[in-house]
Amino acid sequence: MKLRYYTYDLQLKHTFTIARGSRDVNTVVFVELEHDGITGYGEASPSTRYDETPESVIEFIKRIDTGKMADPFQIERNVQYLSSLSENDTSARAAVDIAMHDWVGKALGQPLFRIWGLSPEDTPVTSFTIGIDTPDVLIDKIKEAEEYPLLKIKLGGDNDEEIIDTIRSVTDKVLRVDANEGWSIREIALEKIHWLQEEGVEFIEQPMPADQLLDTAWLREHASVPVIADENVVSMFDVPGLRGAFDGINIKLMKCGGLNAALKMIYTAKLMKMKVMLGCMVESSAAISAAAQLAPLLDYADLDGNLLIKNDPFKGVTIKEGKLILPDEPGIGVTKTGGM
Amino acid sequence: MKLRYYTYDLQLKHTFTIARGSRDVNTVVFVELEHDGITGYGEASPSTRYDETPESVIEFIKRIDTGKMADPFQIERNVQYLSSLSENDTSARAAVDIAMHDWVGKALGQPLFRIWGLSPEDTPVTSFTIGIDTPDVLIDKIKEAEEYPLLKIKLGGDNDEEIIDTIRSVTDKVLRVDANEGWSIREIALEKIHWLQEEGVEFIEQPMPADQLLDTAWLREHASVPVIADENVVSMFDVPGLRGAFDGINIKLMKCGGLNAALKMIYTAKLMKMKVMLGCMVESSAAISAAAQLAPLLDYADLDGNLLIKNDPFKGVTIKEGKLILPDEPGIGVTKTGGM
Repeated sequence: MKLRYYTYDLQLKHTFTIARGSRDVNTVVFVELEHDGITGYGEASPSTRYDETPESVIEFIKRIDTGKMADPFQIERNVQYLSSLSENDTSARAAVDIAMHDWVGKALGQPLFRIWGLSPEDTPVTSFTIGIDTPDVLIDKIKEAEEYPLLKIKLGGDNDEEIIDTIRSVTDKVLRVDANEGWSIREIALEKIHWLQEEGVEFIEQPMPADQLLDTAWLREHASVPVIADENVVSMFDVPGLRGAFDGINIKLMKCGGLNAALKMIYTAKLMKMKVMLGCMVESSAAISAAAQLAPLLDYADLDGNLLIKNDPFKGVTIKEGKLILPDEPGIGVTKTGGM
Repeated sequence: MKLRYYTYDLQLKHTFTIARGSRDVNTVVFVELEHDGITGYGEASPSTRYDETPESVIEFIKRIDTGKMADPFQIERNVQYLSSLSENDTSARAAVDIAMHDWVGKALGQPLFRIWGLSPEDTPVTSFTIGIDTPDVLIDKIKEAEEYPLLKIKLGGDNDEEIIDTIRSVTDKVLRVDANEGWSIREIALEKIHWLQEEGVEFIEQPMPADQLLDTAWLREHASVPVIADENVVSMFDVPGLRGAFDGINIKLMKCGGLNAALKMIYTAKLMKMKVMLGCMVESSAAISAAAQLAPLLDYADLDGNLLIKNDPFKGVTIKEGKLILPDEPGIGVTKTGGM
């Protein structure tokens, strides 16, 4: 088995701002896994929130001894080997995990959704994310997002009311709110949620800091819209402990280490009768199309990372009236666009 | 898609006795699912403990409108359709679920363990079950079980001490004990467990009645060997609620409705850091080989149902020094022996 990697700068269409900061470029690391004449593609989109950088991803990949990995069909053993190298480095592990899954799909000649027993018609509508911005830019972004029926709004800064008022001045679309741990006082968070419910918000993601789980459980008890965990769900082993504190979980391949972990988390959440959301970082169509293979199992999709960039080197999953359309191609279903 | 079914009497090598009763024959229902020139095999082994009989299995299969089922690749939709017909009838649903999985494996040309990313070398040693019996017959059974390094003993009647004393007079093999809900007073159950630990017992399965979950949690708190749920884990949705009350769960395809549910339960239990055991009813090599595809994920295997019968119409998984050996054949890995 051969592993190759290279960095790539995803150029953002707009400066992207959330509660933690702003940026124009997101550097990802692509992985190619070659074995038996088949090449599987993977991608890492490292986040400083989880102490990863493109450099740390490359350091991790260099530490992999492919001689200690079984053939790519043996995903369970191989992800355990990757976990044994590091409990962290989740986007780096996700890149290799995605490449293995792509390889398996290509070896079997089938898209992953089919191998997992899923029906492509069951994909949900994805939300489209609007970052924190000035009122004028927000209005431009909402106009550009015309084709997407569901908007996800980043709040948690000090101008939440201004953002919502601006958005509601131009659209009555259903909104989802991601507070990115922005509200640290539970009574204030509850007031925000009551107000947001009146503004037509479908759910609130990670209203409070991850280390305030008891406050979040109190909030969920009092809130009348679903509260979804994001920063609180990192490792797959976090999922069972979130029962009661949240109504659902937001899984991201880059946080949990890949498709193998994500599938386990989805099944676990479903058996706990919790809602399942699948989110993303700013990613190319490689990682987004990998995540989209799981979309038929989701309650909420937030797989728009590839829509935010202008130099996507892959094509794969597409969107029609907001709904994710899975290509009938093997593995993660992507081809290179020739942009690299 | 065509579904065929027929009943078959599995002849037991020995009269089989557990806390609930005795029998010499176990009637199962085989299912054949034909689609696109490929035939998948399935099997239902109905249990009166869960209100099923061969007749009820056939009644359920007759209710299936194959026109409402998607192609056999779409397992997730199809198992939901089957569940919509009945919350119960789990062995009947398992038969169709197994046949779909066998079909998928054959369509992809791969055994299920490979499709699930598992390594066949990771299978554990299976236990071999010794039913409740008189001392002389017990001694004969222990001798016949010479090739199996792990024995599972059925207790929970009124002669537990006599059974263990008899077994320990002829073997010092590691024992697993299944009490089949036989002990209803928790202090007495704890005394039994202390005694069994001294007798070299690895774990205790379902010591108390399923409706005494709080007593079982108390027992587990005080016991120093693992306590595994059996009758307490039926539906896959039971698993999250068993955290804290048990150290592990015993999954059976015939209780949970098949491989799709079993895989979800295994992943959930692993994320809860609970032990996973896979058990069986008296079944032919069809259902046992299906279950064995999951064996690389297990802590404990108890897949001996086919070893207890003398007219097995299928061959598939074999056993070498107790360890499950998975055939490298597609699907559930079985072929008909010509005995039908």
